[in-house]
Amino acid sequence: MGVERVWLLDSGTLVIDQSHITWNVGCGTPVRFPVYSVLIEHDEGLFLFDSGFDKGTVEELLPFELPEQTEEQTLLGQLDKCGYGPGDVTAVLNSHLHFDHCGGQRHLPDAVTWVDKEELRHALVPESFERLGYADKVFHRPDSEYRWLEGDVVEPAPGIKLIHTPGHTVGHRSLILDKEGVAPLFFCADVTYTQESWDKEMIAGFHNDPTANVESLRRVKALAARTRADVFLTHDMDAWSSYKHAPDHY
Amino acid sequence: MGVERVWLLDSGTLVIDQSHITWNVGCGTPVRFPVYSVLIEHDEGLFLFDSGFDKGTVEELLPFELPEQTEEQTLLGQLDKCGYGPGDVTAVLNSHLHFDHCGGQRHLPDAVTWVDKEELRHALVPESFERLGYADKVFHRPDSEYRWLEGDVVEPAPGIKLIHTPGHTVGHRSLILDKEGVAPLFFCADVTYTQESWDKEMIAGFHNDPTANVESLRRVKALAARTRADVFLTHDMDAWSSYKHAPDHY
Repeated sequence: MGVERVWLLDSGTLVIDQSHITWNVGCGTPVRFPVYSVLIEHDEGLFLFDSGFDKGTVEELLPFELPEQTEEQTLLGQLDKCGYGPGDVTAVLNSHLHFDHCGGQRHLPDAVTWVDKEELRHALVPESFERLGYADKVFHRPDSEYRWLEGDVVEPAPGIKLIHTPGHTVGHRSLILDKEGVAPLFFCADVTYTQESWDKEMIAGFHNDPTANVESLRRVKALAARTRADVFLTHDMDAWSSYKHAPDHY
Repeated sequence: MGVERVWLLDSGTLVIDQSHITWNVGCGTPVRFPVYSVLIEHDEGLFLFDSGFDKGTVEELLPFELPEQTEEQTLLGQLDKCGYGPGDVTAVLNSHLHFDHCGGQRHLPDAVTWVDKEELRHALVPESFERLGYADKVFHRPDSEYRWLEGDVVEPAPGIKLIHTPGHTVGHRSLILDKEGVAPLFFCADVTYTQESWDKEMIAGFHNDPTANVESLRRVKALAARTRADVFLTHDMDAWSSYKHAPDHY
């Protein structure tokens, strides 16, 4: 019952500047960082938190991020490793709609899409400084197919909680999975990128509201500490190497 | 120089309930009301504030509003009365994106479109109670073609001022035209619909934020009084009958 197996799906790697990871600090040093999504087996369906990037789209629109993604690292390749096909995914849960978090959605036309209303609004009508982040418009569907993430906490199924952690983007959400017998699994998405930035309370160079972002980071840290959660960082190569990768699972 | 001739372009009439005009008051009494837009001749171009409704779209999506619009009352018919064709319109200024204010835009693919960012976001991703108001999606263009209405006052050309008057919708704007030798012409769009609601500070039944709407109404009234402006009400049949209609002009 509830959350059963949880897989991390490798989506390959991208390159950005160190100062994009640790705002204003480390300018001029390129860093290759991992991108992944989270597949959740639940008795109410198969849930996918984010969906990685689409290599073709990044090569076309952001080639300077030097995408590396093998066939095995595509969303379809990763689902296959877990014994699933794209038609098996019941619902996609979006932390936010930046291109490296929603790219795989093009393979899931039948999945229900959960997204924050304000996030969708900004993705469709971005501020000038948000345009590149929202470059992949794959998320855009007739609005009857969306399920809205509204309010502070939404629980699409028991034990799958999305909490509002704005700042990186206006409608950014983090994921907490309550799984029987183990500590909660806490995926903070892009509230912060790496262990260093987690420790130092540093936010990414890309953000909509830096103050809200720092507040969300402090909140996430306090919540993780209080619940003794296992925290999963999103774009940290060392941390990523230490996690179990699909088909291995939590 | 500056604002030259100003025409009111008749767009025909629609029917709504009295309580849609005066929020919660007068339920059960249908009222036929006028819709019009404002054409502004200026030495920097030909500006159109709103563009009326599109009869076909209203018949399809909101037939219960019983649209009446002759050929002469279409945007093209009205422009023709002023000696212009659709290709002559330089820029469209949107008070907001409700269907009865943007319908004529389908005839102006080449005009620059000025719109409030938040307004466009809500028009694309409406709240459930806003869906019908934003039923005509004609405004949706590649974002490079928009000019953004941002901040409290925007002046697309000298003497043409759009002021932020939110509440009816999130990005609602009113228009003030400074014309040499006469009092300012003040078009308050849907801040309030009629003389009665202006006098009694009543807002329309359709709104995004009633408190903001009332505050905008008070602000508009104070500003109109202080500048001794000529106020033009938007959906009042008696007031409309008293105005000059194109080809007559201000």
